[in-house]
Amino acid sequence: MTDTAPLCDIGFVGAGVMGKNLILNLADNGYRVAAFDLDHQKLEAVLAQDTAERGDKPARVIGCSSYTELLSRLSAPHLIVLSVPAGKPVDDICHKLIDAGIQADDIIVDTGNSLWTDTVAREKQYEGKFIFFSTAVSGGEVGARFGPSLMPSGDPYAWTRIKPLWQAIAAKVDPATGKPIERFEPGNPVTEGEPCATYIGPSGSGHYVKMVHNGIEYADMQLICEVYQVMRDVLSMTATEIAGVFKGWNEGPLNSYLIGISAEVLATKDSETGLPLVDVIMDKAGQKGTGLWTAVSSLQLGSPSPTIAEAVYARSLSALKHERVKAATVLAGPAQNLISAEQKDDIIQALHDALYCAKICVYAQGFHLMKTAADEHGWQLNFAEIAKIWRAGCIIRAVFLQSITDAYERNDELENLLLDPFFAKQISVYQQNWRKAVANATLAGIPVAALSSALSYYDSYRTAVLPANLLQGQRDYFGAHTFERTDKAKGKMFHVDWSNPARPMVKIK
Amino acid sequence: MTDTAPLCDIGFVGAGVMGKNLILNLADNGYRVAAFDLDHQKLEAVLAQDTAERGDKPARVIGCSSYTELLSRLSAPHLIVLSVPAGKPVDDICHKLIDAGIQADDIIVDTGNSLWTDTVAREKQYEGKFIFFSTAVSGGEVGARFGPSLMPSGDPYAWTRIKPLWQAIAAKVDPATGKPIERFEPGNPVTEGEPCATYIGPSGSGHYVKMVHNGIEYADMQLICEVYQVMRDVLSMTATEIAGVFKGWNEGPLNSYLIGISAEVLATKDSETGLPLVDVIMDKAGQKGTGLWTAVSSLQLGSPSPTIAEAVYARSLSALKHERVKAATVLAGPAQNLISAEQKDDIIQALHDALYCAKICVYAQGFHLMKTAADEHGWQLNFAEIAKIWRAGCIIRAVFLQSITDAYERNDELENLLLDPFFAKQISVYQQNWRKAVANATLAGIPVAALSSALSYYDSYRTAVLPANLLQGQRDYFGAHTFERTDKAKGKMFHVDWSNPARPMVKIK
Repeated sequence: MTDTAPLCDIGFVGAGVMGKNLILNLADNGYRVAAFDLDHQKLEAVLAQDTAERGDKPARVIGCSSYTELLSRLSAPHLIVLSVPAGKPVDDICHKLIDAGIQADDIIVDTGNSLWTDTVAREKQYEGKFIFFSTAVSGGEVGARFGPSLMPSGDPYAWTRIKPLWQAIAAKVDPATGKPIERFEPGNPVTEGEPCATYIGPSGSGHYVKMVHNGIEYADMQLICEVYQVMRDVLSMTATEIAGVFKGWNEGPLNSYLIGISAEVLATKDSETGLPLVDVIMDKAGQKGTGLWTAVSSLQLGSPSPTIAEAVYARSLSALKHERVKAATVLAGPAQNLISAEQKDDIIQALHDALYCAKICVYAQGFHLMKTAADEHGWQLNFAEIAKIWRAGCIIRAVFLQSITDAYERNDELENLLLDPFFAKQISVYQQNWRKAVANATLAGIPVAALSSALSYYDSYRTAVLPANLLQGQRDYFGAHTFERTDKAKGKMFHVDWSNPARPMVKIK
Repeated sequence: MTDTAPLCDIGFVGAGVMGKNLILNLADNGYRVAAFDLDHQKLEAVLAQDTAERGDKPARVIGCSSYTELLSRLSAPHLIVLSVPAGKPVDDICHKLIDAGIQADDIIVDTGNSLWTDTVAREKQYEGKFIFFSTAVSGGEVGARFGPSLMPSGDPYAWTRIKPLWQAIAAKVDPATGKPIERFEPGNPVTEGEPCATYIGPSGSGHYVKMVHNGIEYADMQLICEVYQVMRDVLSMTATEIAGVFKGWNEGPLNSYLIGISAEVLATKDSETGLPLVDVIMDKAGQKGTGLWTAVSSLQLGSPSPTIAEAVYARSLSALKHERVKAATVLAGPAQNLISAEQKDDIIQALHDALYCAKICVYAQGFHLMKTAADEHGWQLNFAEIAKIWRAGCIIRAVFLQSITDAYERNDELENLLLDPFFAKQISVYQQNWRKAVANATLAGIPVAALSSALSYYDSYRTAVLPANLLQGQRDYFGAHTFERTDKAKGKMFHVDWSNPARPMVKIK
C-alpha cells in the first residue's frame, strides 16, 4: 500500500455489469469499496463512474491491481464479494485469494447464479480456509444499481457482518402499501422502507430460493404470453391494443413488474420499420437454466410444479422454429370461430381472471416446492419473509406478494397457498372464467399449456379421490408393485394374484 | 469342477424373479445355463423348477457355489449375465468376477434397470478388464419368462455373441398382423415370428431407449386414468361398466396391453369385500424413477416431453393424499352438470378419440426425445427397429407400434411422428372430439393434465408463430438477453435500449 487512504468496508472481485452496479450502489450508501477485476478496462470504468457521480467529494471506490492489494485495502476479518460467472471462476478466485493470504475468519460472498448444490459443496470444501457465504441477487442490472432483492444464506456470523451493507443497498418496500419505493438516481439511494434482504437459512438455501423465484418467473412470463397469443390470434388485436389491456390490468390485482413491462414492450415501435417491435422479434425463446433446475428439483422431490415445467417446455418448443413452420403447413387445426365485439370483452375479462387464478397456482407450486425442500434439507425457511423480500427489487415483484406475505403471517405452517382463505376465495370467485378461457382456447386451437396445467393442478389438488387407484392396479398387475387399501391401515401393502383374484390377497408388510 | 457335465452356453449372477425367469426362458430354448446367487434358496428354487419342467430329460441349469466355479462352467470367452439391482451391486459383482479371473475378451451383460449414464461410465471403467455390455429388459416377470422386449447396446462384438440367445428368448411378433404371438407354456417357447431384440447402438443407448419406453408408459397409463376418472366422476359409471368400455376399445386402434389390463383390473372383484377391487385400492401412485429420468432428460436436452412430465407430476399429486383430502373440503369446484343418456355416448366417444390423439402425441414426444439424444450423443438409432421390438413383450405393446414402424419405414429421417401422413391424418380426423373432451373436463372440474398437455403440445408444434416474441422482448427488457429479428439473418442478436427505443438497435453478433 503506497497511499494513506483509509481501509475499505468491503472488497469486490468482478466489475462486470452486476458487480459494477452493486459497487456503485454500495458507494451511494456511503460504503468504501476496494475493487479488483482481471479486466483492467472494467475496473477503470467503475472508478471513472464513481468519480463522476461523486463530483468534488472523495471517491468511494478504490481500484486494486492484485488479490494481495485487495486484501491489504480491507480491515480484518476481510469481507470480499465475488461477482463472477457461476462455475469454475468462483473456485479459481477462491484459490487465488487463499494464495494471497486469506484467513479462516475472513468471508467470501458469492453473488453469482450458482447451482445451490455447488454452494453447499463449497462451504464444506473451504471450511477452515475461510468462510464461504452466498447471496443470490435478483433484479438484473437496474436492480443491482438501485436496489436488488437479496437472498443470503450460510454461516450466521458472516450474515451479521454483511447484513447492514445488504440491507442498505437492497430494494425497499413502503410498509403502508406493500409496494416498491422506486427511485433511480445516482447519489440519492432509497433509505426509507423495509429492505428486501433477509437471512434465508443454511448454506445453499438462498440460492435454492432464488432458483424457485426464477422458476416462478418462467411460469409468470409464459402465462402472460399465452393470454397475449389468445388476444393476438383469436381476437386479432394489434400489439398496441394489447398493450392497452395490460396497462389496464396493471392497475388491478395483477399489478406487477412483468405486466408493466409487457405493456411497455407491446407499445414499443421498431426504430427501423416503424412496426410494433414485438412483431419483428423472432418467437424463439432463450433460457439459461434456472427454470429447468426448478422443474428438475420438483420432479426429484415429488413436489409437483407442472406449470413451471410447462413454461420451460414452452421455451423449448418455441426454439423448434424450423420444425414448427413446417408443421404449420401439415397439421390441421379447428375451424376458426368468428368473435363478436360483445364476446371480445367477455373473453378479455376471462383471460384476466384466468391469468390471476393460474398465477396463484404457480406461486402455490413454488412455495410448496420450497417447503418440501426445506423439510428435506432441514432448513427453517420463513415464507412470509421470503414473500416480503420479493415485493420489490426482483423480476416477479408484484402487489400479489403482499397477499402471500399476509397468508404466511396468518399461518406459517400453511401446507399450500391454495388453502389460505384469501386465495381459496379468490379462485372460488374467478374460477368459472378461468375454465371458460381454457376451454375456449382449447376449442380455438391456441396452445395454453401453462394456463391449463395450472387448472389441472388446482383440480387435482382439490380432488379427494384421484384415479391413481386404477394406476396402482395396473402397476400391481404387470409388476407386482403392490398397493394400499382404503379400508386398511396406511403403509400396509397388498398384492393380488390377478390371474386368480379369488385367492386371498398377500399382505406385504 | 468335479463332474463331467458339458460346458454351459451362458452364466447368470442373480436368480431373483427376473433372473430366474430369464434363466428358465433360456433353458426352454435349449441353452445350458450356469447360475450363481449369493442367496442359496433362490438358486435351489431355479434348479428345482428347471428339473420339474424338464421331466426325465437332463436338467439345463447348473448351480454354482462360487464365482470361480461359475467361470469354470463356461467356455471361453465367458459370457455372463447380471440380473441384480441397479447401482452398487453391479460394480460389486464385476469386481468379484475380476478377482475370480475374468479376462479381457470375456463379456458381462447388465440386465438391471441401470441409469444409462452409469452404463456409459462402466464400459469405460472396465475397459481392458472385460467387455461391459448391457441389455435393458421390458415386460416384467411374465415377459422375462415367456418373451421380453430386449434393448441391447454396447460393444458390437459382444452383440454377435449374445444375439442368438437374446433373439431366441425374446417376445415374437406375427409379421402378418404386427401383433404379439403369445404362448405362456413352460417347455414350449414361441420360436416363430420376428424377435423383439435388436441392437440399439453404442454403450448406454439401450438403457436410454428403455428409459424413454418407461416415460411413454407413465404417460400412457396417466391418459387411461384420466378418461377413467371422467367416466367415473362425470358420467357416474361403475367400475364394471368402465371395464366394458375399455374392453370394447381394445378391439380398435387403441388395442394394447395397457388397455387390456385396465379392463381386467376394473372387472376384478375384491375377494374380501366383493366390491370392485379398484374401489378399495388407495389412489396413491408409487414410482421408481424411470419416468422422472425421462422428464429430466427432456428438460435438459430441450426436447419437449410435457405429457411425460405431467404424468410424473400426477403421480406425485396422487401421493399427497392427506393434503388433497383436506383441500377437497376447502377449495371450490364448478357446479355439476347433469348428463343425459345421449350425451353420455357422445362423451365416451370423445374420450376414446382424445385418448387416441393424446397417445399419438406422447409417442411423438418420446421418439423426438430419442432422436434429440441420438443427435447429441452420436448414436445412429433405427427408430423403425425400436418401434418393432416394442410391438410385443413390453408394457406399452400395442398394434399402434406397427403404425409407428410403418411411419419410420416410410421415412427414417422423420423429424416428428406428427408429421407422418398417417398420424397427421388421424389427428385431423379425431381432433374435434379431443378438444371437446378436454374442454368438457375443464368445465366439469376434472383434472386432465396429460390429455390437455398433449393437446397444447400439438397446438404449439403446429403454430408457426408462437408468443415467444413477447417473451424475448421481456427478457431483453429486464436482462439485456437480446433477440433475433424476423427480418434479419438467423443468429444475429439484437438489443434495444428500452428506455429510449428510438435509438438504433445494437447488433450483438
